[in-house]
Order: sequence, then C-alpha cells, then structure tokens
Amino acid sequence: MVRIAIDCMGGDHGLSVTVPACLRFLKEFDDVHLILVGRQPDIEAALLKKKALEHPRLTIHHASEVVEMDDPPAQALRNKKDSSIRVCANLVKEGLASAFVSAGNTGALMAISRFVLKTMDSIDRPAIASSLPNQLGKGTLMLDLGANVDCEPEHLFQFGVMGSALVKCTEGIDKPTVGLLNIGEEVIKGNEVVKKAGELLRDSELNFYGNVEGNDIYKGTTDVVVCDGFVGNVALKTSEGLAHMLGDIIKTEFKKGIWPKVAAMFAAPVLLRFKKRVDPRRYNGAALLGLKGIVIKSHGSADAYGFFFAIKRAHDAANSNLIDSIRTTMSHYVRPKAEERRGDEVPNDSLETKTN
Amino acid sequence: MVRIAIDCMGGDHGLSVTVPACLRFLKEFDDVHLILVGRQPDIEAALLKKKALEHPRLTIHHASEVVEMDDPPAQALRNKKDSSIRVCANLVKEGLASAFVSAGNTGALMAISRFVLKTMDSIDRPAIASSLPNQLGKGTLMLDLGANVDCEPEHLFQFGVMGSALVKCTEGIDKPTVGLLNIGEEVIKGNEVVKKAGELLRDSELNFYGNVEGNDIYKGTTDVVVCDGFVGNVALKTSEGLAHMLGDIIKTEFKKGIWPKVAAMFAAPVLLRFKKRVDPRRYNGAALLGLKGIVIKSHGSADAYGFFFAIKRAHDAANSNLIDSIRTTMSHYVRPKAEERRGDEVPNDSLETKTN
Repeated sequence: MVRIAIDCMGGDHGLSVTVPACLRFLKEFDDVHLILVGRQPDIEAALLKKKALEHPRLTIHHASEVVEMDDPPAQALRNKKDSSIRVCANLVKEGLASAFVSAGNTGALMAISRFVLKTMDSIDRPAIASSLPNQLGKGTLMLDLGANVDCEPEHLFQFGVMGSALVKCTEGIDKPTVGLLNIGEEVIKGNEVVKKAGELLRDSELNFYGNVEGNDIYKGTTDVVVCDGFVGNVALKTSEGLAHMLGDIIKTEFKKGIWPKVAAMFAAPVLLRFKKRVDPRRYNGAALLGLKGIVIKSHGSADAYGFFFAIKRAHDAANSNLIDSIRTTMSHYVRPKAEERRGDEVPNDSLETKTN
Repeated sequence: MVRIAIDCMGGDHGLSVTVPACLRFLKEFDDVHLILVGRQPDIEAALLKKKALEHPRLTIHHASEVVEMDDPPAQALRNKKDSSIRVCANLVKEGLASAFVSAGNTGALMAISRFVLKTMDSIDRPAIASSLPNQLGKGTLMLDLGANVDCEPEHLFQFGVMGSALVKCTEGIDKPTVGLLNIGEEVIKGNEVVKKAGELLRDSELNFYGNVEGNDIYKGTTDVVVCDGFVGNVALKTSEGLAHMLGDIIKTEFKKGIWPKVAAMFAAPVLLRFKKRVDPRRYNGAALLGLKGIVIKSHGSADAYGFFFAIKRAHDAANSNLIDSIRTTMSHYVRPKAEERRGDEVPNDSLETKTN
C-alpha cells in the first residue's frame, strides 16, 4: 500500500477539485492510501457532498493554515507553520507518506519542501521537471522549468541525472536519451554555461544525445531535455500561449456563419479526439526533483481530471524508488562543493519558482 | 522609387523561389526597383522561364560566388568576396540599394553585413527581430532571436530601442509598448541581467510595459518583446515545433477512417481559413537591426509566397527611414563603451546566428 499525502487546499479551486480527484483515484487504484491534508471540517464537508466520508483507504489530516497563491515563499515558510503544504511535507519527512501532491503556490511549495525535506546530498539545487506531449505520442521530460534562473554547468548536468532517473523509474526506459537545449546542434553553439554543461554530459555515463533545439521538445528527439529554469519557463509558457491562441482561432473560425457551424458538427468527433491527444491535463504534475522526498506540483488551475494525473505521477514515482535511483546515479560523481552552494536554510522572497 | 537588392542564390531553394517572388512583388508594387544579385546566366534562365527577362524595374547584378548554408561565417566572409550576399551588402553600402533581402546562411549573412555595413555608432550588437502572430490578429515583434547568446542589460535595452523604432516605422504605432521577457510579472523576478535591463528600460523614454511572460508573445500584450538571443531562439523554435506537431496530429486525425474524411471535406474551408490566419509565411522576414543599412533575412525554407513577404518587409523598412529612427532614439542616451564592446572586424566561426 502506497501512502500519498494530498494538499487539499492549494490551487485556484482548492477542495472542489482536489477531493473529487482523490475519490476518483481511490476508485481506479486499489494499492493506494490517500491522506487528505487541510482544514478538517472543510474536507469533511467536501467528502460528505460526495457521500464518501467513510472510505477505508482515506484519512483526513488536519492543517489549520493555508498558503495563499500570492504569499511570498519566505513568509509562507516562516509564518504558516501549520499550513497544508507544510503538514504534507512533514508527513513525507516522517515516513508517514511516500509522496505528496500540491496545486499551491509554487514558490512556497519549493521553499517549504527544501526546508523540511532538504536537498539530496549530491544535488546542488532542486529542479522542476514536467512531461510535455511529443509527436511520437509519448512525453518529453523537460527540466528545469523555473526553479533556477541562473545555472552553472554542474547544475545542468545534475538536471540530466535527475531527469534521466525520473524517466527510468516512471517510464521504464533503461537508458533514457538526454538532450541539452541549445540554439543549434553543433558543439560550438550556445553560451559558455551550455557549452561546459555539454562537456560534463558527454563525459558522463548518461545516454547523452547532444544538443537539441526548441522544436526537438515536440519532435520527441530525446526522452529528457535539460535547460536552465529561465529558458525552460519561457519555452513552457510560450507553448501554452501558442496552444491557447491556436485553439481560440479555430473555435472562432468554426463559429463564423452557418456553414462553419454545420462543418463543426461534422468535425466535432475528430476535433474532440485531437483535443484529447494533446490535452495538457494528461501531462499535469511536475516533479520537484532533488529533494529527499517526492513532491509533485499540480498546475494551479487544474480541474479534477488534471489533478488526478498529478496524483498518478506521485503514485508512479513512489512505486519506483525514484529517490534511490537519483542517489545511486549521483554517487558515481564526486561533488565536493554541493553543500556550500546549496544553502537550504536561507529561502528568500526572490526565490524564482513559477510554473503556473 | 525604392531600390532593393535581392540575394537570388540563398536559401534551400535559391532561384526557383527568389525569382518568382521578385516578379510577383514587382507586379504588386510599382514604386520599387529590384536588383537581382547572383550568377547572371542562372538568373537570366530563371527569368526567361517566366518570360520576364525585360522587366523595366528589374536589373541583374552578377555575383560569381554563393555562400552555402553550411559555410562557417568567418570563411564565407574571408574567402567568398564575390558572393551574392557580399555583393548585396556592397550595393546597400554604396547607396545603390536601400535594403537587401537574403534567405541564405544566417551566420554568414550577419557576419558579412556587420563587416560591410558596420554596426551603428550607438549600438553594441545587432539583433535579429521578427514578427510573430498574436491573438489580436496583429504581430508581436520579438528580438533577439539568435544573434546574441550572452547579453548584458545594456544590450537588452538597445534591443528595446531598435524594436520600438522598427514597429514605429513599419506599423505606424507612435509609442509601441515594449515588454521584457521574464518568468514572472513582478519586478523581483528573473536573473540579474534581466532585472538590470528592466531598470534601464523603466528609466528610458520608451513606452515600457514591464515584464512579460512567454504566453504574452501570443496574447499580444505588448508590441515588442525583448529577450536575449538564446531565449528568443528557443522560444521561436519551440513554437515552430509545437505548431508542427499540432498540425500533424490534426491532419492524422482527419485521415483516420471514412467519417473523419467526410468531416474533413466539410471542415476544409474553415480549416483553410484557420491556416491562412496563422500562416507563418505571412510573418517571414526577420530584420537584422543595428546595422548601418537595412538587411532582411528570409527563412531558409521559405517558398515564393513567404519570400514575397520578406521583400515586403524590406520595402516597408526602406520606405520609413528605419535607420534614422533608431539613430535618433539612441542619440538621447550617452553610451561611451559601444565601440569597445562591439568588435565589428573580428567575426569568427563561433558566431551564434541561427534562425532557421
């Protein structure tokens, strides 16, 4: 039985999304026990609404405070010691849960997780990793998506190790290919950091493909794409913007006049199938990698269907010994400076973590 | 009469694309004279095919060499002194053409243009700027798209000035809004370079909107979006990859079985209209900004329809005194270090310029 803690209060919709998603998850997976964290009376009311107060694989764990979406990370960490995020992290730290899922404020989630769970000994900085759909019908894991705006080559290398371990664990690919996001395939391309990161990756035991470009993310050229958090965040948000614009234009065009409306009826099943294939909700759930515990971040605006997939990612990672896998791979590399560079204990409000 | 030089030999398709595009352009615009640059016999043969050898507003200017798409920039500059790109640049330098257009090797185009035309006195580094379609049905001008992988705050600021001038000249917007690409709207977001660039932009006379995120490019939040060439290139290529994937999936779905094929027939006019609205060919033609002359880079794979739009961009820029406009705006700012930082005379093979 895998125990997963759920921050029921986070995200744009809170309980109205998290509770139904949890109930659906319990229905589909019978090897999981969910710990619903948040204000007990509110959670009970939400469960009652769904007539599911007495589920045998569900526990409520009270947390009196809620981190708001706009709370500065350092303040959330310092002043809300009984927040649902903090309680979730504590449950994972104490071994009472194998993972936790939150749709809350990304900056606060990262700060609290780093503080409570600590960063792995071999890792300088945790990263945010998420899967994006690709042309092969699979996912391309991309990291970092916004936790680290200034990266050293060593960090990018560690992202490669962690991303590789995640794909290995969750997708069952033995030696995932790793690509370094750059502006050309040639070794001489890119800025100094990227060039040096390329050297580190090339010399490692990872299955390093070489440089990849932006379009390779969606081509599925490699299983993992590594980049700094600034570039990753821009690429992610740009994709969201483009997809939104295209969806919007196609909707408008199918509403212009009678003929397009008739055409829309004919095309509806096809368009629905198309929509399903590229539905971002199925890719919801970013991993905060590099911590001594599994933390999954759902998109803040996710609905119950999307939040379900975030829980699934936590479930997959918990079932496959992700943390040990990263630790084992990293143990091959000597890294004396990790502790110095890390600074777990000094989160501040300028912490850059934003994916939604 | 505006005189525009055309590098007829560049791009993936060379004469078979450039010549028909030129003829169409001459047909639609009667205030323009085109100078077709390249191997005279080949150009003549291509014109003969179209029965257009004797057009009164068309001249052929012989250039014996061609820069190949994979020629290293420095070698193209040093060893091919009679290349079609070089001859085009010379024509602009000597005032015999107001602008030139090439679909050739971006790195070589930038190196040769910098060497022949020189960078403007007030500008440190030229940038590549291109318009992307946005939700408002207009274009968002984005720069830099790959000429500068490591930028100082000052460079980003200059990109803002140049982008602003371009939009003002070509779109007739008096005070275009300028956004700084970042990973959050708040002033504290981003890396050090971006934060300092934000200060420079805020203190300037530009119509600075503040930070924008990746999705704002397609929302059309600002007229101009400024970023370093690494980030810009990744955003552009990521967009290309996503658009390609979505187009591919929708095509596949409409071919699966008889019903979707029937639906496709019904939906065809709507899908065509959709395609037309987001057709990237209409946005073809990136400006190499910051040089003492107008240079427009067409996508290497552009067809005649796409190349036509690249010529149109050159035409618009030449008609609107772009260079003077940039010079005037920049003259308000004291910039002592420009000459030092520039280094026009030392192009090398690691020059990062790739947009196609």
